Amino acid sequence: MGIKRVGRETYRPDSVYVTATGAVVGPKEGQGPLGGEFDRIWQDEIRNFSSFEKAEQGLLREAYEEAMGKAGRSWEDIDLVLGGDLLDQTISTNFAARDHTRPLAGVFSACATFTEAMGLGALLLGGGGLRRVLVSASSHHSTAERQFRFPLELGYQRPPTAAWTATAAGAAVLEREAGPIRVEAVTLGRVIDIGGKDPNDMGSAMAPAAYDTISRHLSNSGSSTKDYDAIFTGDLGHFGLKMLTRYAQERGLVFGSELDDCGRALYSQDDQDTHNGGSGPGCSASVFAGPLARRLTQGRLTRILLVATGALFSPTTFQQGETIPCIAHAVELVKAEEA
Amino acid sequence: MGIKRVGRETYRPDSVYVTATGAVVGPKEGQGPLGGEFDRIWQDEIRNFSSFEKAEQGLLREAYEEAMGKAGRSWEDIDLVLGGDLLDQTISTNFAARDHTRPLAGVFSACATFTEAMGLGALLLGGGGLRRVLVSASSHHSTAERQFRFPLELGYQRPPTAAWTATAAGAAVLEREAGPIRVEAVTLGRVIDIGGKDPNDMGSAMAPAAYDTISRHLSNSGSSTKDYDAIFTGDLGHFGLKMLTRYAQERGLVFGSELDDCGRALYSQDDQDTHNGGSGPGCSASVFAGPLARRLTQGRLTRILLVATGALFSPTTFQQGETIPCIAHAVELVKAEEA
Repeated sequence: MGIKRVGRETYRPDSVYVTATGAVVGPKEGQGPLGGEFDRIWQDEIRNFSSFEKAEQGLLREAYEEAMGKAGRSWEDIDLVLGGDLLDQTISTNFAARDHTRPLAGVFSACATFTEAMGLGALLLGGGGLRRVLVSASSHHSTAERQFRFPLELGYQRPPTAAWTATAAGAAVLEREAGPIRVEAVTLGRVIDIGGKDPNDMGSAMAPAAYDTISRHLSNSGSSTKDYDAIFTGDLGHFGLKMLTRYAQERGLVFGSELDDCGRALYSQDDQDTHNGGSGPGCSASVFAGPLARRLTQGRLTRILLVATGALFSPTTFQQGETIPCIAHAVELVKAEEA
Repeated sequence: MGIKRVGRETYRPDSVYVTATGAVVGPKEGQGPLGGEFDRIWQDEIRNFSSFEKAEQGLLREAYEEAMGKAGRSWEDIDLVLGGDLLDQTISTNFAARDHTRPLAGVFSACATFTEAMGLGALLLGGGGLRRVLVSASSHHSTAERQFRFPLELGYQRPPTAAWTATAAGAAVLEREAGPIRVEAVTLGRVIDIGGKDPNDMGSAMAPAAYDTISRHLSNSGSSTKDYDAIFTGDLGHFGLKMLTRYAQERGLVFGSELDDCGRALYSQDDQDTHNGGSGPGCSASVFAGPLARRLTQGRLTRILLVATGALFSPTTFQQGETIPCIAHAVELVKAEEA
């Protein structure tokens, strides 16, 4: 038991595992290229809920159910729930906590929330005391649109760099006992603000934050991009991935085919009209909890770096002409037997 | 090094200390009964900032400065900043992070944010790996009013149970080396929702959550209310304190003169027109970082339980007719020599 500090700001928790995950997504996400790798796909965005906000809470509760069921755990076994979402005052996570009534630590890093929760959870477990933690993040296209953008009914035209907030929730049970996936290392991100102001081009704004965290993680761990089967950023999307590749190359870090992005992977660019790709805390949460966790468990991947990215602005700061502070948190995950 | 689990959900981190704190408040808070015990008092609510939102960030940065200066630390010494605030997407904490550029883990429990940050920080330090953490919370009367209530210019009449969001920021440096105050134990809260719906009576809504956390903390630690010089709840205020006293008594837990509340203590009920008392994440943060930390350091208090309370709703959930989920996180602090 314990946590080893590696380099300046990377931590290796001893014996922390992901024992089970749950990924529940909306219809558009289910129709995308990863559709076959989620646990549940909703047939519509609202179901029988009276509001989109309640639907998002329902989505999150189902992700909890899936993760808990697969882990074979009851809520009494969970010492702490660490999670967050995109809505003002993170109401999805807080309202879902009315049902599970386990100790709750709300976290917020915008679309980087899932790896913040997973990183903190792994460090808390590695330190001892806590035995099992549930981490989660969620988002819903329709709750985010009306909070951050315009009423859906307006049908405004989106620029090519705009992201599509995913209707998706992901959850993972982290434990100190053995499990199929081990949390190898954690690097929590710092705020990087290069002066981007366009909420319709968050991918470009977030790319330098992704670079900062990835380069620190690699340098601290003494590893290179080639040591990973996959490096999945959060919600950079098509434009952000190009920006990251060029930005890193200018600084001497060259990515190969291992680099991909949860937002890019979630939808088909050809026929789903999602422009830059998916975003929202549920995007990287569900892409990890569904496809990536599945591939690690099956051994199709043996070592990945998950680097969710977040744009930490609000409608108020946008209206006040502020730039967008960005952040990225990295969690390195390995297939347990390969460790 | 390590963390000991006590009872069901209380944790004792080994050798975690508060080495320094910083408390910066607005003019009204400075004129209140605790005015002499804060580090800095602003003479007006906005100073030379162009918006109240920027003023809140300024307040928070000054609390950081005070805490870091007293700890004799530079930012390079800080491994992680754990903090949050009340504004949508916790912009105060996130924008202040553009300057310090240290790894940031955003947290949110509404007005219970400070003890969530301090609790998580203590557990992360106790587990090893991290050496120094800065925890913080802030609020600003004028940013909260226009986000949650009405334009200030409206001058609406507030009911007697309404709270006054404090213009205040508090920060604390937590370290594994020795310091004047030791973090003895942490109990993270769970969501309790007894069906309250009135945003102008959050004290009553939050009292059962405070009871739940305090009673679990006492029962897990095998301690009684008499073992504490002071038990300070967060923002229950005058009405909420009465509600907590009665609610606890009905369940066999009797409080004596040790029970007090940060929101009640912050203002004078006689002449400051703040009705139920102070609220906002900055309330319990500044009351701890100023008066309580000072009294612990000077030995005027030797053991306290700080139980910040939070109402986890939003304007959206209020408009949708939802009840208010509440939470309280407890941190037990002792004068280091007395431990």
